[in-house]
Amino acid sequence: MIRFECDYAEGAHPKIIERLAQTNFVQTKGYGEDEFSENARRMIRRLCLCESADVHFLMGGTQTNLTVIASILRPHQGVITATSGHINVHETGAIEATGHKVLALLTHNSKLTASQVEQVCLEHWNDVNHEHIVQPGMVYISNPTEGGVIYTKNELQSISDVCREYHLPLFLDGARLGYGLAAENNDLTLPDIAKMCDVFCIGGTKVGALCGEALVITNETLKTDFRYFIKQRGGMLAKGRLLGLQIEALFTNGLYFEIAQHAVRMALQIRNAFRLKGFRFLYESPTNQQFPILTNEHINMLSQKYAFELWAKIDDNRSAVRFCTSWATREEDVQILIKDVIQLFPPC
Amino acid sequence: MIRFECDYAEGAHPKIIERLAQTNFVQTKGYGEDEFSENARRMIRRLCLCESADVHFLMGGTQTNLTVIASILRPHQGVITATSGHINVHETGAIEATGHKVLALLTHNSKLTASQVEQVCLEHWNDVNHEHIVQPGMVYISNPTEGGVIYTKNELQSISDVCREYHLPLFLDGARLGYGLAAENNDLTLPDIAKMCDVFCIGGTKVGALCGEALVITNETLKTDFRYFIKQRGGMLAKGRLLGLQIEALFTNGLYFEIAQHAVRMALQIRNAFRLKGFRFLYESPTNQQFPILTNEHINMLSQKYAFELWAKIDDNRSAVRFCTSWATREEDVQILIKDVIQLFPPC
Amino acid sequence: MIRFECDYAEGAHPKIIERLAQTNFVQTKGYGEDEFSENARRMIRRLCLCESADVHFLMGGTQTNLTVIASILRPHQGVITATSGHINVHETGAIEATGHKVLALLTHNSKLTASQVEQVCLEHWNDVNHEHIVQPGMVYISNPTEGGVIYTKNELQSISDVCREYHLPLFLDGARLGYGLAAENNDLTLPDIAKMCDVFCIGGTKVGALCGEALVITNETLKTDFRYFIKQRGGMLAKGRLLGLQIEALFTNGLYFEIAQHAVRMALQIRNAFRLKGFRFLYESPTNQQFPILTNEHINMLSQKYAFELWAKIDDNRSAVRFCTSWATREEDVQILIKDVIQLFPPC
Amino acid sequence: MIRFECDYAEGAHPKIIERLAQTNFVQTKGYGEDEFSENARRMIRRLCLCESADVHFLMGGTQTNLTVIASILRPHQGVITATSGHINVHETGAIEATGHKVLALLTHNSKLTASQVEQVCLEHWNDVNHEHIVQPGMVYISNPTEGGVIYTKNELQSISDVCREYHLPLFLDGARLGYGLAAENNDLTLPDIAKMCDVFCIGGTKVGALCGEALVITNETLKTDFRYFIKQRGGMLAKGRLLGLQIEALFTNGLYFEIAQHAVRMALQIRNAFRLKGFRFLYESPTNQQFPILTNEHINMLSQKYAFELWAKIDDNRSAVRFCTSWATREEDVQILIKDVIQLFPPC
Repeated sequence: MIRFECDYAEGAHPKIIERLAQTNFVQTKGYGEDEFSENARRMIRRLCLCESADVHFLMGGTQTNLTVIASILRPHQGVITATSGHINVHETGAIEATGHKVLALLTHNSKLTASQVEQVCLEHWNDVNHEHIVQPGMVYISNPTEGGVIYTKNELQSISDVCREYHLPLFLDGARLGYGLAAENNDLTLPDIAKMCDVFCIGGTKVGALCGEALVITNETLKTDFRYFIKQRGGMLAKGRLLGLQIEALFTNGLYFEIAQHAVRMALQIRNAFRLKGFRFLYESPTNQQFPILTNEHINMLSQKYAFELWAKIDDNRSAVRFCTSWATREEDVQILIKDVIQLFPPC
Repeated sequence: MIRFECDYAEGAHPKIIERLAQTNFVQTKGYGEDEFSENARRMIRRLCLCESADVHFLMGGTQTNLTVIASILRPHQGVITATSGHINVHETGAIEATGHKVLALLTHNSKLTASQVEQVCLEHWNDVNHEHIVQPGMVYISNPTEGGVIYTKNELQSISDVCREYHLPLFLDGARLGYGLAAENNDLTLPDIAKMCDVFCIGGTKVGALCGEALVITNETLKTDFRYFIKQRGGMLAKGRLLGLQIEALFTNGLYFEIAQHAVRMALQIRNAFRLKGFRFLYESPTNQQFPILTNEHINMLSQKYAFELWAKIDDNRSAVRFCTSWATREEDVQILIKDVIQLFPPC
Repeated sequence: MIRFECDYAEGAHPKIIERLAQTNFVQTKGYGEDEFSENARRMIRRLCLCESADVHFLMGGTQTNLTVIASILRPHQGVITATSGHINVHETGAIEATGHKVLALLTHNSKLTASQVEQVCLEHWNDVNHEHIVQPGMVYISNPTEGGVIYTKNELQSISDVCREYHLPLFLDGARLGYGLAAENNDLTLPDIAKMCDVFCIGGTKVGALCGEALVITNETLKTDFRYFIKQRGGMLAKGRLLGLQIEALFTNGLYFEIAQHAVRMALQIRNAFRLKGFRFLYESPTNQQFPILTNEHINMLSQKYAFELWAKIDDNRSAVRFCTSWATREEDVQILIKDVIQLFPPC
Repeated sequence: MIRFECDYAEGAHPKIIERLAQTNFVQTKGYGEDEFSENARRMIRRLCLCESADVHFLMGGTQTNLTVIASILRPHQGVITATSGHINVHETGAIEATGHKVLALLTHNSKLTASQVEQVCLEHWNDVNHEHIVQPGMVYISNPTEGGVIYTKNELQSISDVCREYHLPLFLDGARLGYGLAAENNDLTLPDIAKMCDVFCIGGTKVGALCGEALVITNETLKTDFRYFIKQRGGMLAKGRLLGLQIEALFTNGLYFEIAQHAVRMALQIRNAFRLKGFRFLYESPTNQQFPILTNEHINMLSQKYAFELWAKIDDNRSAVRFCTSWATREEDVQILIKDVIQLFPPC
């Protein structure tokens, strides 16, 4: 079985394991105040060209999302997101459990637009009974999105502009940010994101780490007391070095970017094979996740040999599936898959 | 500087690091459904002589506490604990953030008693206006306690009996359970705990792991839907193997117990040195944490050479401090400390 | 200005004011345990043919909804409702503030169907990753709905059946239940509702009281500890008699039903006038709220003389508006309105 | 049976009932934007000499407390109060249900002191691990306290000063404020309170209304979006006039103060009788609640003829009880009680 079902099937990039072994006996302070974490913070700030940013390390995506969102919103406010947003569909109501409504908007190709955000604000503030309605309090987007799609620099700038006009902090969930930065035709950089967003995270778990996300807060107001929130939500590790060390390793000599480029290159080869045969896709993804729409027959054939995820039923005969690559995906496995795709009967 | 300030200053026991390296390229399912986690679960069940127990792995203590407590209580219920309980003082209101009052009782030597629990229940149910008061909904104890003190089998049995009489699930926080089981005069075993408690955790982070706690649920009712709660509170790791692997390594060939015995032996040698010189202690601890009461002058002298934690001010001239040992504590360092203690002026 | 904008513009039905004056000096117990409340409870139970029901009195609709829903759901569960449901749009996130997601479904004519509820359940339980998704925990419907529409006996029975199959308590919000029972072609009775639902409320505020809703709990499990929840959410009045007295007055000699019938009769006369002229309606309402779709010009003309609410913009030229009647609506005012409607230019 | 067990046994002062009847057919806007509420707001502002204050009307005490406190605190903050504070003991965890810890301090005579508040702040900010501890975020006091005791002008000024130094909003719960202002030796005025506190309420329910508290917000920051909070917590009445009308009636021609003076005068006569006979008191109350300590025998004798509340067990032979007066207490009933007290055997 050749596995393409997710980007978290293996442990960590070997350089991380090596680094854990190497530093194991060094004694450090706890709770993220160790030297490895401090160094990782410096590296992130430098890459973002933002010396004033606060950088924290958290274990995983849901924890990061709920901690950030609950720290920003007041009780009567909600967070605007795409209906496909991770916080809306795959976090078991983690945001609501902190007391806040997720204001989910239907999107095209899984991306939110600036004008959608503006419309929600206009509708809210123009309603004479707005006190009876959840107030929009911030915007959450992910890049890449749940569909593997990326925002252009212009799109993000427009969203950022609307957010600032309506005083809505903008939070970018970068659980797979590496793959977004390495995507075909991407024109966004870390410094752009640091300028346009108020807070964002750079995901480690799905880009080569055992666990860990780097959270970057650029908005001065949002920095206040953030460590209290990490602690309260259960995210402050006694051995915080575990997170700092991994991020440090990932950003040493550009490993993070190298890993991501490899994965995207592998994914695009897979995409091109499906495209060549005339298959359509659920989302137009230039990143490490590809969502071709296959017939049930194709799905059955491919599942004999490959592991991949069933993503969304299209109709009785067809479903979108997900093929996912990572730092650990081997080029020879991709070549084998491509050969098999090429031999599939073409879709009608 | 010789460090005794905590039990989480180093990485993990080398066998854990070794195991991480060894298994790194194995492909597994995510979210704790991997084979390492499954194996660790079996090991825990066997050690607890409780084949029907549910075993989950979580990252850290606060996360475990808030997830368990919020899963058990209904909205109008609170959790009974000692005022010194971790959930009452050192979790930034994590429990209250899930909506529940911590019903904190003053204790002697940091331990809750069965009769205290009973009294709270009697007072509540005898009050004609009990609907205006938070209903006691469960009991939380830690073993060892925050003061390093352990419960005897009889004490735990009595608490368990009262809890069952009043239908209060009993949760034992074993963040340092290894040290409790290895404590001088301990008569409690894992099977005892599994029988007397409804849910308890076996801490890894402070007993040799990088991170991770094994949560054992023996009460049938409390098992339902528990994975939803882990996910909702941000505790479900994509690479759940990280936790399973470590617990597996710790319970292979009794490593966990061996580590804990070493640490306790070191701590008792330190305790005996202070005792010999007539020092008194804040708590009577038979575990890896010792809390001698020192004069400011003693504290200043010892801090030149040793790292240890200032724990509680006793009066203007004296404070209780904490010396803490772990798997990584070296016997030669303990001997050096003992020599220095022996040469201290005796306290009046 | 003749007012049709809501059903809460005046005080209370005069019989209520009279009763308040009459009983003012009677001394009673507090917190809803007075004799007036007890008598009102008996009356409600009798009308519902359900002697075992628990009956509580709360101040208003949002408070009732949040208290009931938070009392039923466990933390990982959400409440299924129509997107137009009051809890989804007009309670400032009151439900989410108690920690729960509102699972809102698009509806036709503002009514939820049994098959929609079933589909949500099937999708949830068939998803292999259902632990990452909010679990459906109960169903909320209102009767009449926000659109003034009513459920038939068959429809409610079907929803009830699905709910019982999937163990979802069914909560019917009857803020305007009187108008639903008095509606044209209604075939539902209070005993039907008591049998089919697990908990429901009979609204007072919008059917002649100063304030107050009677909450009826028929499901044994949901009765437990309910007074704690009322107190915790701020709904337990020291002078609970204020609520009991009003409900008692409303159900003495059928006043509640009489009021509602009057209001519905008035509303249907208004509806018929608009219909006669060919106007369409946003919802097909047989109750005291009517939502004709008018051109901006019509709206301007009518607003000179009548107060009514702008409800939903249809396009640049047209909006749906709401005309609302109540116990206090005078027949002569309705006649004047009808004459004016008859003289409107017909819509294209 | 002559009743002294609470100050909410009757309906409302007759002037309120009269006013309800008189205005019943007036049509008004809903949700507290009616002319009666507007007028009541103006009256309150004038009495407080604070034209810029925001004034809202809520139904009852618990609702007011939870709405105010949840609107002020950020998630990691708690509210400082006396252990006897209503929010700590008699609101079924309403504050914790909004996510916040109640930081309860042991008090003498049920009053918090400025130095206690300061000490909590110093301890918090001096702790190197303060991020692990709930941050003090505001102060809650009640005046009169749960023990009927009042703060002097100097005491309140000192608390206010400390609060401002540590940026803690000060909330005064005046559920029985009228009785405090009318108390023997009181030197506080409404304008003093408006200047020294950031937000406070003037209770109606226990001082002659059917229900209703006037909430006065003087701190500019705390005013923002407050109506959203009222709505979200279920406190916004469709017929908000019910509250506005009553407050308006209470503050017309000084009725509120007159009622309170009568009740206090009655209570002090009762107090003096007990004092004369050598009885001691649980609290030194100069207001409408008196807490003499009686033997079980005395309690049995008096309960034959009088209703009063058993408050706190002192020892096996004695308990503190509560005698409570109100606008409705009749002087002749007080005289009868006094005669009976005078004939009691004196306590040892």
